Amino acid sequence: MKRGKVNLVVVGSVALDAIETPMGKRVDVLGGAATYACASASFFTRAGMVGVVGTDFPERERNRLKAFDMDLEGLQKVSGATFRWSGVYEADFINRRTLDTQLGVFEKFNPELPKEYQKASHLLLANIHPELQLHVLKQATGATFVAIDTMDLWINIAKAALVKVIKKATLLTVNDGEARLLTGKHHLRDCAEALLGLGLKYVVIKKGEHGALLFSKKGIVIVPAYPVRAVVDPTGAGDSYAGGFMGYLAAKGSGKFEDLVDGLWYGSVIASYGVEAFGLEVLEGLTRKKVEKRYGDLRKMVL
Amino acid sequence: MKRGKVNLVVVGSVALDAIETPMGKRVDVLGGAATYACASASFFTRAGMVGVVGTDFPERERNRLKAFDMDLEGLQKVSGATFRWSGVYEADFINRRTLDTQLGVFEKFNPELPKEYQKASHLLLANIHPELQLHVLKQATGATFVAIDTMDLWINIAKAALVKVIKKATLLTVNDGEARLLTGKHHLRDCAEALLGLGLKYVVIKKGEHGALLFSKKGIVIVPAYPVRAVVDPTGAGDSYAGGFMGYLAAKGSGKFEDLVDGLWYGSVIASYGVEAFGLEVLEGLTRKKVEKRYGDLRKMVL
Repeated sequence: MKRGKVNLVVVGSVALDAIETPMGKRVDVLGGAATYACASASFFTRAGMVGVVGTDFPERERNRLKAFDMDLEGLQKVSGATFRWSGVYEADFINRRTLDTQLGVFEKFNPELPKEYQKASHLLLANIHPELQLHVLKQATGATFVAIDTMDLWINIAKAALVKVIKKATLLTVNDGEARLLTGKHHLRDCAEALLGLGLKYVVIKKGEHGALLFSKKGIVIVPAYPVRAVVDPTGAGDSYAGGFMGYLAAKGSGKFEDLVDGLWYGSVIASYGVEAFGLEVLEGLTRKKVEKRYGDLRKMVL
Repeated sequence: MKRGKVNLVVVGSVALDAIETPMGKRVDVLGGAATYACASASFFTRAGMVGVVGTDFPERERNRLKAFDMDLEGLQKVSGATFRWSGVYEADFINRRTLDTQLGVFEKFNPELPKEYQKASHLLLANIHPELQLHVLKQATGATFVAIDTMDLWINIAKAALVKVIKKATLLTVNDGEARLLTGKHHLRDCAEALLGLGLKYVVIKKGEHGALLFSKKGIVIVPAYPVRAVVDPTGAGDSYAGGFMGYLAAKGSGKFEDLVDGLWYGSVIASYGVEAFGLEVLEGLTRKKVEKRYGDLRKMVL
């Protein structure tokens, strides 16, 4: 069922997670960066997912993805096991300990963009090896706005490739620790300026429940986070954030600075819903109307 | 030299600190909650300081206090040594380790309000023993807006007295850890609601570089923090914040909710200047014009 053009392509992991937080424990939770990002983008635009699952990936889970307005032509199914991650969050919901990682078919992931995806204006390269991000960039000939995410692992073992990706990207999302590790600087404003110096137009420093800072040549923009009543599972919040704002931007298609800022507020809203339950539980019941309601509430919280 | 009516009374410590942060080390730094709060309030109103120093307190330091527009009639000088604190901040500038505390004359501090102070409309009870806060409250017959601060120590050893103070106060400032310790709840919204349930009109949860949340029956207000280029010494930031907004409120005298929110933005601005150097170094060179400039900049950072 195709409901429209794919404006946004998301490349990343699709996983089955086992998650323990101070609020409970779940196994076989449908997750992965591409999952959270595409589901979140789907409230604004039609996103195409580029990822890989194994032959063990349940049809039920595939149907859950399809229930969002996303295109799954780019989701490969190959022989082997789906990527599995398990981890435990500490009481602060920030620090987490990985118990086990089974890469499975994700280890040999070779992202290929279906023909239609190559023309998409917006591309979100979620946290995967920078060499794979470069491989996707070569195919995404129509992309005019490229957002990338990364993690400490790639900064440590593949920095040169990562810098190459950064030089080709429009926007980078990092947390404060990653920003420091990547630039060798301590103060966030110095980190952001060093990253902008590599050619990025925008740097978004994510601070979880404390919101985010957008850095650009135009200065700094503060994007608040919605104060949720109870965080249940923060897994995928950063991906929901990125998927949300890229979905909003792709739908707008304007490239206006105001739309980017608005998109970050919307990304923040979607992420705040997402953490209120495990996995996709909240996002599956979410409507655009509820998104607009909380967006309005959040706007009213800054006087 | 009296330049006007005392609208705001601040009760708290005056100290000589030895501070080490990742940015440097200083000894004999004029500090203490009342010092930071009164200096910060002075940009908006005339504040009267109620505190105590020993006979060792240098005239030079007293003159530094006088150079701010504050009234020192309530600053007692008694036989003994001035309160001394020394501590080391970790690389995150949040966690700090106390190396030494010499209470000196502060141990027997018996705050007495000069007659003029008793009529002041605004009262800030900085972090002192709740029994002393109660003692001051009895004297402050003209106070219509009472803000209080506290710390984990009093929550642990004098909770009953602290709850009595809270029930008589208008506004409480706490950080997240203190809010949890005080209420036994985990989620900040639950903590705030429990505290409002004690009769407070406002609860301000301070999050340092991440800003603050104002809770009231009207809902939640998010107050951002100015992203400073380089934090040098965070000592006293919470006191500057409280002094700044109480000074602004006392000057306005209106009690309007909008003024309270604006005051929190101004408090945030003064605190952001304060942390850019050790002790009072930046506040001593600060002007109302510079305060307005950064306030405007901060406002423009939220789009």
